[in-house]
Amino acid sequence: MTTAPTSPSSPSTLSPKPIDTAALINNLQWRYAVKKFDASKKIPAATWQALEHATVLSPSSFGLQPWRFVVINDKALREKLKGASWNQSQITDASHLIAFARRTTLGAEDVQCYIDSIAATRGVPVASLDGYKNMMLGFANQPGFDTALWAAKQVYIALGVFLTAAANLGIDACPMEGIDPKQYDEALRPVLGNDYTTLCVATAGYRAADDAIAGMAKVRYPIGDVVKHV
Amino acid sequence: MTTAPTSPSSPSTLSPKPIDTAALINNLQWRYAVKKFDASKKIPAATWQALEHATVLSPSSFGLQPWRFVVINDKALREKLKGASWNQSQITDASHLIAFARRTTLGAEDVQCYIDSIAATRGVPVASLDGYKNMMLGFANQPGFDTALWAAKQVYIALGVFLTAAANLGIDACPMEGIDPKQYDEALRPVLGNDYTTLCVATAGYRAADDAIAGMAKVRYPIGDVVKHV
Repeated sequence: MTTAPTSPSSPSTLSPKPIDTAALINNLQWRYAVKKFDASKKIPAATWQALEHATVLSPSSFGLQPWRFVVINDKALREKLKGASWNQSQITDASHLIAFARRTTLGAEDVQCYIDSIAATRGVPVASLDGYKNMMLGFANQPGFDTALWAAKQVYIALGVFLTAAANLGIDACPMEGIDPKQYDEALRPVLGNDYTTLCVATAGYRAADDAIAGMAKVRYPIGDVVKHV
Repeated sequence: MTTAPTSPSSPSTLSPKPIDTAALINNLQWRYAVKKFDASKKIPAATWQALEHATVLSPSSFGLQPWRFVVINDKALREKLKGASWNQSQITDASHLIAFARRTTLGAEDVQCYIDSIAATRGVPVASLDGYKNMMLGFANQPGFDTALWAAKQVYIALGVFLTAAANLGIDACPMEGIDPKQYDEALRPVLGNDYTTLCVATAGYRAADDAIAGMAKVRYPIGDVVKHV
């Protein structure tokens, strides 16, 4: 048996630092979609940076990363976007607001950009990746390929990573699909251009002590109804 | 200020057990899409149960949980499904194989089922949830509502939760979209019925010592290109 070669920052150079299963489940039980944030509490910069980093490390189809994430700090902009979000208070009260946007196209230029990134990161010739490139092009060009569905799925993986990471860092959050993507796209045009479109947002910070939702039992169908074994 | 009421297993009865940011990022850097599993290594039962539990705790739109997860243990079935998965070895070599399926419809009966679940869990009258029920019905009945897109998004949140949870438990995994959903649906019909359809699978277990992919540097676009601040 040969041992896999290693390069800096490759998965084989690291060892996992597992948390115990009880802590994981505790954190996910503790998590809920916060209705009312404590507007006075801010996420420490290093913690937020870790959340951004975790999100960027999300897996995606072929590794294509068809996404962009926009952190909206500007107070006036957040006030305006609250109006594009059913006036939900989390948009302005949470410590952080992050928009999840998907790539609008998957074309040859996207594939080439990614191939170039692989070649540069791994120090391999671009031409050595022709097989992988052609596989991706074949995928993107298959009849009936639904770019919107494909890209949305990838972005929602990242949303799941973000929310799980937040819970494991002790950060409260609320994912929010109830937004007007068009108004978000207009407001975020300077950073999204026309190549990305907003799908949803997440707010993050710390729950208010009097958020009544936190006191209600978490509702889930019985695990035996949802997870089947064959 | 009032304090939120509490009930058993509500988020307010728990405290988070945060992991440190370096451990989180380490685990996500350690994670990769495993190409070759060590077929001799099995995930301990308690760890796998925690992964199932974590997945069931995934957030979803309104909390509707439009998903089903199928753990495929049967060896012959896994061998057969390998043929429906581009013959990728992970399907049979990984310790565990789990299919992620979405609900095919979002109708009044789905909403009522969920409302009944809330009422039973929280001990509140069904009628007290009429406002929430009508909001969900209005959502489901909006013109042009795309059930497939909506439900797929939710399932992919769960996929993100599963993969992040696995990494944090030191379990290797590989998400796989390259499957023939129709063949999976046929094989899993006894537990999926016609109400759920397979979207993707994940394999989980332990990387083989000679999986060359593990030694390659992880490829991500620079965080500054992907995460924007406004």
